[in-house]
Parts: sequence; C-alpha cells; structure tokens
Amino acid sequence: MTGCDVLRVPADGECDVLRGQDIVVADGVIAEVRPAAPVRPAPGDDVVDGRGLLAVPGLVNAHTHSPMVLMRGAAEDVSVEAWFNERVWPMESNLTAADVRLGARLACAEMIRSGVTTFADHYFFPEQIAEAVGETGLRADIAPTYFSSRGQEALEETVKFAETWHGAADGRITVSLGPHAPYTVNDTDLRTLAGHARRLGLRTHIHAAEHLEQTQSSLERRGSTPIGVLYETGVLEAGALIAHGCGIVEQDLPLLAEFAATTGVACCPKVYLKHALSPLTPVRELLDTGVAVAVGTDGAAGHNTLDVWEALRLVALTQKQAVRDATWMTVSGTLRLAFRGGARALGLAERVGALEPGMRADIVLTDLSGLHCRPLHDPRAALVYSTRASDVRTVVVDGRVLMRDGVLLTVDVPALRAETDARVARILDTSHGRAVQHYDP
Amino acid sequence: MTGCDVLRVPADGECDVLRGQDIVVADGVIAEVRPAAPVRPAPGDDVVDGRGLLAVPGLVNAHTHSPMVLMRGAAEDVSVEAWFNERVWPMESNLTAADVRLGARLACAEMIRSGVTTFADHYFFPEQIAEAVGETGLRADIAPTYFSSRGQEALEETVKFAETWHGAADGRITVSLGPHAPYTVNDTDLRTLAGHARRLGLRTHIHAAEHLEQTQSSLERRGSTPIGVLYETGVLEAGALIAHGCGIVEQDLPLLAEFAATTGVACCPKVYLKHALSPLTPVRELLDTGVAVAVGTDGAAGHNTLDVWEALRLVALTQKQAVRDATWMTVSGTLRLAFRGGARALGLAERVGALEPGMRADIVLTDLSGLHCRPLHDPRAALVYSTRASDVRTVVVDGRVLMRDGVLLTVDVPALRAETDARVARILDTSHGRAVQHYDP
Repeated sequence: MTGCDVLRVPADGECDVLRGQDIVVADGVIAEVRPAAPVRPAPGDDVVDGRGLLAVPGLVNAHTHSPMVLMRGAAEDVSVEAWFNERVWPMESNLTAADVRLGARLACAEMIRSGVTTFADHYFFPEQIAEAVGETGLRADIAPTYFSSRGQEALEETVKFAETWHGAADGRITVSLGPHAPYTVNDTDLRTLAGHARRLGLRTHIHAAEHLEQTQSSLERRGSTPIGVLYETGVLEAGALIAHGCGIVEQDLPLLAEFAATTGVACCPKVYLKHALSPLTPVRELLDTGVAVAVGTDGAAGHNTLDVWEALRLVALTQKQAVRDATWMTVSGTLRLAFRGGARALGLAERVGALEPGMRADIVLTDLSGLHCRPLHDPRAALVYSTRASDVRTVVVDGRVLMRDGVLLTVDVPALRAETDARVARILDTSHGRAVQHYDP
Repeated sequence: MTGCDVLRVPADGECDVLRGQDIVVADGVIAEVRPAAPVRPAPGDDVVDGRGLLAVPGLVNAHTHSPMVLMRGAAEDVSVEAWFNERVWPMESNLTAADVRLGARLACAEMIRSGVTTFADHYFFPEQIAEAVGETGLRADIAPTYFSSRGQEALEETVKFAETWHGAADGRITVSLGPHAPYTVNDTDLRTLAGHARRLGLRTHIHAAEHLEQTQSSLERRGSTPIGVLYETGVLEAGALIAHGCGIVEQDLPLLAEFAATTGVACCPKVYLKHALSPLTPVRELLDTGVAVAVGTDGAAGHNTLDVWEALRLVALTQKQAVRDATWMTVSGTLRLAFRGGARALGLAERVGALEPGMRADIVLTDLSGLHCRPLHDPRAALVYSTRASDVRTVVVDGRVLMRDGVLLTVDVPALRAETDARVARILDTSHGRAVQHYDP
C-alpha cells in the first residue's frame, strides 16, 4: 500500500493523520508503516497504489445478525413487540440453511464494500455463516444463537460448533457462545455455557439490558438486573460481548467494572431510535468502568444497512445529545470506539483495530475527495460526519485484497442478487403462524 | 425519462411506486406520467433512459447556508456558544463576495450530486448565491441575512435584492426576506421587513425558537416567546419559513395555526444532536396545527454535508424516539415531509414536490440496486433507511439535465476544488478577533 495517508488511532488522546506513507505487509501482518519512498517491488509483491487516499483500520461491526439482510425493509413502522412477534421471528422460522448461507454472503459483500473487515455475528445455522466468511475473506466472531426453548441437544450443538470452528479460516474465524438473552435462556443454561466458555477460552455474545423496561421487568420478576444475572451465572467472569445495554443501570456498573478487561458493549443507535427506545446505551458511564464500548449495526431487518459509518456517526450524534454535552464523544473518541473499541469488545485487540506493526493487515482505503468532504479541513471530522460507505475504495483483510478500487474480488454480486431475489417471497411469508420464539422480556 | 419506476407522494396516506413509466416533459413542465411505451423521439427530444431506476421528486433542502461548505469540519466538538462566538462568526467575518460565490457553487454541486433540486438559503452576499444558482441550474429561495446591528442601509439593500432577484433565472430563483432571528433583529426592523414582505408578496425566512433555552430567555427578557414575537410583528401574517423551532412551546401552536397555510418549519436534526440540544422540533404538534414541516440540513459548518437523505432519515429516527412511538413518522410520512413538506414550506407547492402533470420537471433518478438496498422488499423503506446520496444517478431541474449518470453537467468540479483549496487558509483564520455578530440569544 503505497503513498497513502494513514489514520493513527491511539489508545488515548487525539487521532492524527500521517501524510504520504507506505504500509508494508508480510504474511498477512503489518510489517511497517513508513514515509513513502520509491521502492522496486519484488516479483510477487502486490502493490496497491494508495496515493490520494486515506488508509484507516478496517471497521468492526460489533453486533449484527448478518443473514437478516434478507429481511431488510420488511418490518417498518412497528413497535418492538410487533417487530419480533409479528414480523421477524415468524419470518425467521422460514429460514433454511441455504437461505442463511446466501444471506451471510450478501451481508459479507455489503460489509466489504463499506469497509467493514470484522463483524460479530449472532445467528442460527452458524456453520453457514462460517463458510460464507471463509469464502469471502472477512474476519468474524460468530456466536450460534441459542434459546433454552430449543433444548439440550441444541445447546450441545452450539458448543460443538465452537470446538470445531474457533480459529478456522487461518484464524479469521473466532467463535463466541451465543445464548440469546437472559429472558430467553435460563440460568442453568447460562451457567453451563459460561462453564464451556471458560473451558474453551471463549467469550459469550449475548443481548442484555436491551432497554430500561427490560431491566425493570427483570428486577420485578427475579430481583436481579439482566447484568446482575450475567454476573451471577458466571457469564461476565468468562468474558462477554453485551449487545445494546441501553438498560444498564448504576448498580450494574461495579459488576461490569470487575471484569472490564474482558467485557464489551456494542452500541447500535439506529435501531434504538427506530424502535423509539430511550435511554440509549450509557456510553460515558461504561467507558468510565473500563469496559470496551464498540459500534454495531444490529441486523438489517432493523438497521436496514450494515453500514458502520452510519452507525458510528449516530453514536457520536446521539451520545452528545444524550448527555447534553456537545464537547463530548469527540471525533477522536468516536473513531476510537469504532476501531479499537470494536477490536477490544471482540477480544481481538492484539490483532486488529489499528494500523501498527504487528497487527493483522486489515486496511481500508477511503477516498475523501468527494464534494461532500471538500474542503477537507479535518479528515478525522470527515470520517465521522461526512464520509459515506461509497467512499471506500479498497479493502484488505489479513493481507488479502477483497475489494480493489470498488470491485469486489471474492463475491459474484449479480449471481448473489439473482439467487436472493428468487428466495425472498418464501422468506417473507408469515401466513403459517410459526415463530422461532415469543418475545416477552 | 423512459421506463423508470415512479414514486408517488400523495398529500395524505401511503406513498406508492408505479412500475415502468415514462415521464414526458415539455417546456420544463411534467406533461404526463404514463405506462412506458415504445415511442420514437422527435428530433431535439432529450431522452433519458430510466430503466432499472426509481424516479423521485427532487429533494428540498428547506434550510441551509450554502456557502458555509467552506467551513465544513472546522468547528467540531464545541458548545453552541463557542461554535458561534469562537468559530463560525469570526470565520464568516473573513468572507468576501468571491468566497461566497465559490462556496455557493461548491454547495450547488454537492446538492445536485445528492439529488437536491431546491434549497432555501439564508446568507450574506445573496447576489453571489443567486448567480451560482443561475449558473448551476438549481432552484432556490434565497434570503439575504440581516442583523439589526448592520443598520438601515443594510436593511434597504436586502429589500432591493428581493425586488431585483425574485423570479429570476426563469423563475427558478425566488427570494424571501432574511432577518436572522428575533434575538438579533429588533421588533421595529421585523415590522418593517414584514411590511415589505406583504407589499412584495414574499415570505420571511428566519431562525426562531431554535431551542428551549432561547424561548425561556425570550420570555424572561421580553414576555413573549420567539414565535410570539413573529406573531406580534406581523412576520407570521406575511408568511414565514421558520428554521428549527425546537423551542416551540404549546402557547405558540395557536399562533402558528392561524397562519398555517403560509407557515413552514424546517427540521434539521443532525445539528440539534451535534449541538446536544433537546428537545427536537415538535413535528407531531406542528403537523397537527397544519403548518408545513420540512427537512433541512442547516449549513455544512454544523451538518458537514448538504445531504437531505441523511437529514430525512434522521428526522424519521429522532422523531420516533422523541415521541416514544415506533409506529409514527412512518416511511410515507417522512417522504411526504421531504418532498411535499419542503415545497409547501418554501411556498412552492404548486410547482415542485411531486411528479405530477403540471409540476415543474424536477426529477431525480435513484439506483436502488446497491447491496445496501438488496433485496428490495420495499423501495419506499429503502429511500428512508438505506439510500445514500451516492445512489443518485441523474438529476433534472426545470426540465434541464444537471447530472447525467453521475456526471455533473453544469459545474467544473476540478476547477472548483482547486479554487476552494487556495482560499481556505484565509477563511479559517480567526486570529483577527473580529466576528459578524455576538451570540447571546
């Protein structure tokens, strides 16, 4: 990668931009970031011309259900209860393994195109997602969704998936265990899964404290907050990626702080706004506890896109307003969440999230020459407040080019689109009255 | 325009999409929208192939300060007071007429590219903006910004601008009078301007009740809300486009309802979030009074883009959350605000805002084939929740093609960018300590 500017995202303080750098990659790892110099590439070297472009770390989508792209736009303007019980969970009961494979491939294609290089997935038919990740070249942490209503055999299958797939695709695939939520998975199962997580050195990816009503309901029904349940059942101790956490309350903070090094919270504001939830993820309080806060989209049945640029912008905007402080959730702070926060939340901080020697080479070249970015007083501000997914030009994961100058290299988009269009009518049909689960948190 | 799908935006009820239509344009006006049929174009006919694309009315940016694109990204992470007094108003004191001309051209180019065909501008050196609109082919309502601190001669100049430019560029340019706000323009001047507005048959475009603190301050200082001041001084009676209105309170609603037919309120949520303001524009209450509610970006020094897709999505998302009702501010309702609401708010409802016979031919062809829109269960939902400005392919204003398949035809972008880059250092310099005004609402 030659002659590009490079975004530096430090663990603390302001981000900055190094002008005119070469990024040298060897064996999928960043070997060096150095001022650009004319070099003669050795035979077999793949040189990407980065002149005029800004290299940023690959974005991390810290919480999604990738195959739900199949239901994009099919559940609008409904309450959160109707969204689950009348639309999404009935549609999900239609899904076959082949549908999930297709949806995951479509999602991977969309994420590559928008500069996402790593995603945390939580879904059914996880093998299909793993295959799609393997094929398309992305990096993913995959959690197989588990409800207690599915029974012990299903639980054992999720553990078997973890044992089989963790570390696959040259390490690009990691696995977390995936109990859906404390209101759909009982404490016994949570304890069992936490035990497996500790045994296997994995984390748990779980929806918890999605909104304040859920926290209140949990307190009334059982005397513990959802975070309290994760603490009591050993889920937090084993390490957890918590989706949403909008209902995290003050008494939860010390519990999270105790295991801060291995806890992440994924903030997905577009779906909170769309589902009219309030308050939002308490990001300021969470950062104070030391847990990793990351940016996610959630599934496209709610978020409509898998665009992490859109999500990170909404994190900045909504968090400023939530705490009534325009000077907070700064440009640098927001970029830190999206890159380093995402990496930490997925337990991948040693591998991705920054363009530094020793990190896996997950690199995104963005073009900030568009009219919506000019004049370019501050490229960091442009990344948070002006950039669109369509400004992503080239995407590299683990040193392999997945998109070059806007052309996807690992996905046949027309074939994928045709196959999708052939399946959607069946997937949207909810006349059967089935559902994967009933929502009543 | 042949073979395209066409979005219909009715005055009430659901939007829908007509498949495979031809839009026939004559003399800048939509003559017919009819099912596509093979026709042999007459010599001189300009045929735009719309197959595979969705035609929507041109977007209306109902409140902006177009030349502020020059300060994009130069005032981040500051309070609203510091934004005005330390950053923007000092920078604006550097602006020359030539800067404003350049900024307006850059803004017009950005808006054309993103499918905005009409904008309501409020700025200094309005002749320069009018020239830029004339050159680039857009439609605009231009209000010359006036502060009472500028004195009577400046007031008379704004009236003279209105007399000279209203109806220019074949009617594409209209003028509103532009008192900045009730806290920077005294009541005598407001009354004088309202009188001129009535005499000339124009409206007033004014910032008012920008946030609740401003309303409270107005009540304390003078016993009236900002909307009350507009009522008492005759501004509402003459017809007004009110920017923001986040501080509109219950007692204002009957005053607005009295002149609902000629009152518009522009909602620009990105800047409210970014400046940590709360509450947001009370859109539901405003719609109940019958006033037109429209979508705007505000200037790019706050909004960073002039992207009305981004703005309308944020209206939907933030309004759902503000009233805690996910079933409100529906997809159809949001599209209606962005198209018909914008047209009504600018007093242009007879001319633009819908693709119907008799309307001026302001037509935008969007491409919903991108991965972020597929599968396309509902193109209306895609327009609100998935579409990006980069999905706009072709833009027609008053029957003239301004962008064809992504190529801008009325703007020399490289020259514009070079000229901008040469000017920005001077514009950003605030070491002189001057400002156009002091902010203390």
